[in-house]
Amino acid sequence: MQTVSENLCFGGVQRVHSHVSKATGCEMTFGLFLPEQAKSAKVPVLWYLSGLTCTHENAMAKAGAQAWASRAGIALVFPDTSPRGEDVADDKEYDLGQGAGFYVNATQAPWKPHFQMWDYVTEDLPELVFSEFALDPDRQGITGHSMGGHGALTIAMTLPDRYRSVSAFSPICNPTASDWGRKQLRAYLGADEAAWAAHDASLLMGAKGFDGPVLIDTGTSDQFLDLLRPETLAGAMTARRQPGVFRMQPGYDHSYFFVSTFMQDHVEFHAGALTA
Amino acid sequence: MQTVSENLCFGGVQRVHSHVSKATGCEMTFGLFLPEQAKSAKVPVLWYLSGLTCTHENAMAKAGAQAWASRAGIALVFPDTSPRGEDVADDKEYDLGQGAGFYVNATQAPWKPHFQMWDYVTEDLPELVFSEFALDPDRQGITGHSMGGHGALTIAMTLPDRYRSVSAFSPICNPTASDWGRKQLRAYLGADEAAWAAHDASLLMGAKGFDGPVLIDTGTSDQFLDLLRPETLAGAMTARRQPGVFRMQPGYDHSYFFVSTFMQDHVEFHAGALTA
Repeated sequence: MQTVSENLCFGGVQRVHSHVSKATGCEMTFGLFLPEQAKSAKVPVLWYLSGLTCTHENAMAKAGAQAWASRAGIALVFPDTSPRGEDVADDKEYDLGQGAGFYVNATQAPWKPHFQMWDYVTEDLPELVFSEFALDPDRQGITGHSMGGHGALTIAMTLPDRYRSVSAFSPICNPTASDWGRKQLRAYLGADEAAWAAHDASLLMGAKGFDGPVLIDTGTSDQFLDLLRPETLAGAMTARRQPGVFRMQPGYDHSYFFVSTFMQDHVEFHAGALTA
Repeated sequence: MQTVSENLCFGGVQRVHSHVSKATGCEMTFGLFLPEQAKSAKVPVLWYLSGLTCTHENAMAKAGAQAWASRAGIALVFPDTSPRGEDVADDKEYDLGQGAGFYVNATQAPWKPHFQMWDYVTEDLPELVFSEFALDPDRQGITGHSMGGHGALTIAMTLPDRYRSVSAFSPICNPTASDWGRKQLRAYLGADEAAWAAHDASLLMGAKGFDGPVLIDTGTSDQFLDLLRPETLAGAMTARRQPGVFRMQPGYDHSYFFVSTFMQDHVEFHAGALTA
């Protein structure tokens, strides 16, 4: 593991590291905010998965999460959104390939060799950060934005003993029925749609739900509402009687100005579950 | 004036506009955060001047100031750091020309036609924003980072009736004696160093001080301390008995991770002066 940068931030340290991942077979970069409390004890962890076109850096620089994580004494992990490099497959469109891993393990060419983002986020990167830093694996929450909200929800519901709490900002809620999903799931997982259901938050919510609190925020002026399909997830949550809160925030759009506005709520939501 | 973007943010609106400036003779872009309180009354204004290589966007996206400005009910203005465009003079180095206006009115070729950033920030842009938005010209404060801290301090001391409060993050404190200053002041103002003194915060502090509260934060691990020369400004402030606070923050560097950490203090410092 290499150290790319270390910046003191809200009394803690905002770190960036790179490492060669077994899962993706290439060098990966991630951000990690360690609050001051990590100097003396293992701290809870909130995973933040980013959206299309993002790297590890966007949320780390723009979401303002460190302000609240430092107060709550929880760490933040910011993984990248895909494998990267000249030897890694890519596509000319922004929504497929590098920057658009969709948090799945690809089974199809040309993506299969490196696009193993599910394993990277759930196995490879956790193994590294829990061995290297003062983080408590028994107190994990997960959140994300847009494609990262999709990742957070699908991962949390699939690994129910792993995360105590899950939240999302403007998540892709129903990718099997959206142009943000069908194209990518076909490319990464193949034409058989049966394999896609495991990566659809609304279908997973209907099938199994989440054994813990859920918080979702989406803006009523989000320019991508037709692609996000919040109604399918809100419908599935309420039909299932899933404990949780689904908020449509009046006037907010899809940007980090929206994410930063409600970041305090999300960090405190997770802190409540992780420090109880 | 054109509208580039409007994003709801912390209950207010983060706006970006462009306009043709009389002062700089080219199109300029600025950011403006209007808190929700501006819907019903004129609100106080905090000017934020950015540093070398920055545009209007850096602080707007990364400093986290909107979180605190929305609570205090004050607006934020984020001017660009220089004129820009293909017809505007430039230099191959990052610290001269576009992105490096140093908040002066250039008197020398090739900079004179467009590099009139002092007039832009103190006359042209104020005229526009006070006529177009619900901002109270009697309640203004000014702050900035690095080159922008230099701008905030020199402008505030030169226009003592304009701003009630001034603060700075890791300001360039003594440009007449620094490689962040001598090169640029010579290029923009000419070889006669007598013209430079009006743009040196430490010299201005010694000569006239500021009739209001002053807050300065600089990190002890700032990688540019030798260029910033905080000791000259702290010396001048204390020698003059200037009311104010000069804080050396242990371990912090020059980045926006430092700026965002202390942004709450600065916004609340100005809010205290502007809403008293």
